[in-house]
Amino acid sequence: MDFPASVEWCIRACRNPIEEQSMTSPSLPVYADVLRAAERLRGHAVLTPLLESAALNKLVGGRVLVKAEVLQVTGSFKFRGAYNKISQLSPEDRERGVVAFSSGNHAQGVAAAANLLGASAKIVMPADAPAVKRAGTEFWGAAVVPYDRVKDDREAMTTGIAKAEGRTIVRPYDDPDIMAGQGTAGLEIVAQADAARARVDAVLVPCGGGGLVGGISIAIKERWPATEVYCVEPDGFDDTARSLKYGTREGNRPGATTIADALMAPAPGDLTFAVNRRNLAGGLVVRDDEMLAAMAAAFQHLKLVIEPGGAVALAAVLAGHYPAKGRTVVVVASGGNVDPATYGRALGV
Amino acid sequence: MDFPASVEWCIRACRNPIEEQSMTSPSLPVYADVLRAAERLRGHAVLTPLLESAALNKLVGGRVLVKAEVLQVTGSFKFRGAYNKISQLSPEDRERGVVAFSSGNHAQGVAAAANLLGASAKIVMPADAPAVKRAGTEFWGAAVVPYDRVKDDREAMTTGIAKAEGRTIVRPYDDPDIMAGQGTAGLEIVAQADAARARVDAVLVPCGGGGLVGGISIAIKERWPATEVYCVEPDGFDDTARSLKYGTREGNRPGATTIADALMAPAPGDLTFAVNRRNLAGGLVVRDDEMLAAMAAAFQHLKLVIEPGGAVALAAVLAGHYPAKGRTVVVVASGGNVDPATYGRALGV
Repeated sequence: MDFPASVEWCIRACRNPIEEQSMTSPSLPVYADVLRAAERLRGHAVLTPLLESAALNKLVGGRVLVKAEVLQVTGSFKFRGAYNKISQLSPEDRERGVVAFSSGNHAQGVAAAANLLGASAKIVMPADAPAVKRAGTEFWGAAVVPYDRVKDDREAMTTGIAKAEGRTIVRPYDDPDIMAGQGTAGLEIVAQADAARARVDAVLVPCGGGGLVGGISIAIKERWPATEVYCVEPDGFDDTARSLKYGTREGNRPGATTIADALMAPAPGDLTFAVNRRNLAGGLVVRDDEMLAAMAAAFQHLKLVIEPGGAVALAAVLAGHYPAKGRTVVVVASGGNVDPATYGRALGV
Repeated sequence: MDFPASVEWCIRACRNPIEEQSMTSPSLPVYADVLRAAERLRGHAVLTPLLESAALNKLVGGRVLVKAEVLQVTGSFKFRGAYNKISQLSPEDRERGVVAFSSGNHAQGVAAAANLLGASAKIVMPADAPAVKRAGTEFWGAAVVPYDRVKDDREAMTTGIAKAEGRTIVRPYDDPDIMAGQGTAGLEIVAQADAARARVDAVLVPCGGGGLVGGISIAIKERWPATEVYCVEPDGFDDTARSLKYGTREGNRPGATTIADALMAPAPGDLTFAVNRRNLAGGLVVRDDEMLAAMAAAFQHLKLVIEPGGAVALAAVLAGHYPAKGRTVVVVASGGNVDPATYGRALGV
């Protein structure tokens, strides 16, 4: 028996309002998209290890598994989404090249993926981005266009370049292909934790615009429905945590600062929030000093270089914002592109 | 037709003097020993990744593959040999425990392996060992007995404890089981490079007493006979390089210093030199400033924390002591247990 369209719409909407939203906005990524992304990335992205330290386990009284995305191409997870996106462009679009705005990690991911796929890249990057991130971007042959975080409208600059030069915009998070690409880290977490016979209670993921946590949550909820996924944000940039709490997209108050330069997105994305409100158990928030302590712990116990924004998930566990005692938790170390001065500050030298 | 014993001795000795030596001293480890060690370590040691950086490749004009043993249990390769050795002790010997002397990495490897295998451990360690190494050793429940590098005889102290307490001595390198354990890193290098379709011209390995390079050379020469294996030592501690050159075991001149605290062995081991003189293409030597530069390069391009002694192989490539241009070279990053102050010095902060 067929329902009239309007009734069917109501049933669908009541059952799952997100599905409805995906009919009007670009469709939300699903598990099959993440699997297809993994096929595209095979042999190009690093299958980063899931590391464990007895000392960290003892510190928290539980089991902490660290997904070392700092070892990914370009030193952060961003290569995954960028490669998944750019590899699907037509030959004509690749020929015209890509453009992106980014504080640095997405910039490097786009620059590397474009380079490997034979496309030129132009990156709109804040003038105060860490030197290591600008150098990493230029290494891959991308042209950097600096902007002022306060005065300039980076999205307008990016759109202008795209129109003038026919370039495809590679968004940092609010794109189904980007989210599906980042989600491949979640597939690996599942396979690696299963191989280690770990029953994971929660997965904690650093969050700026929400693309990484959204993508990972798709893989986790499909394969481990009972496992909780949390986003972790810096104090002052807890837009996703508050949005999840209130059920509507909330921005950050102006003027906030953080050492986590990679996680300063102004508000949750449209698509990312649609996925995250469905999949996430909540949002955790950490302070700068807690990130620095986590970076020092990773130096001592994991031998991994983690940048402030990449260390928020580990910080949430070490600072007790997530109660890991007696539990098994995966934390994603999402990036390691940090300047020596900031790193020295973390080590106290 | 049988030869009289003396004639047979002569023929054997002429054909291969090493084989003869193995008849009187403890037998030298062979490829089958390394395979058996890998079986024992499965599920206990980390299968550390073989990492590559486009930036490092560009710097040297070749392909550099980095075996990240800093990600091994205890932050260095030493866990491999220690676990292989202690796991073969009888229940009675495990009950009586083990004793070892070490500047710190072997100490932690022995302490961790003993802990996991239910044996108590006592470690004779230089009083000036990096704090991170002493802390790592004590974390695993081992008792640390400090000694003075100049005044005390660490081997005599170790032997005394072994006799008095019935403990088994776990030597840092001159033991077939230790060498076979370290050699499992070589098996992994072969499998990982083959999977990456890399035809490896040379494998460069940090060298103190020669156990790691000896063990790895057994795996490499069995599987890739044409690939050259080099040991890399700090300036002032180039005993193995000179011994290989002159064909006889040479010690280091007294009073030399280096920041590579892990590579200050006084002379090649008996067994290690017997293996290394047969398998190695030669020895390379690097200065302290070259190690610091390699540590900074690993920070920037690999996101790995490497200690000075662990960075000598990468340093040899970056400083041009091995001509990597147009070649594919594996460098082993053997350890990452470095104090913040020394690390800050490498980063220039």
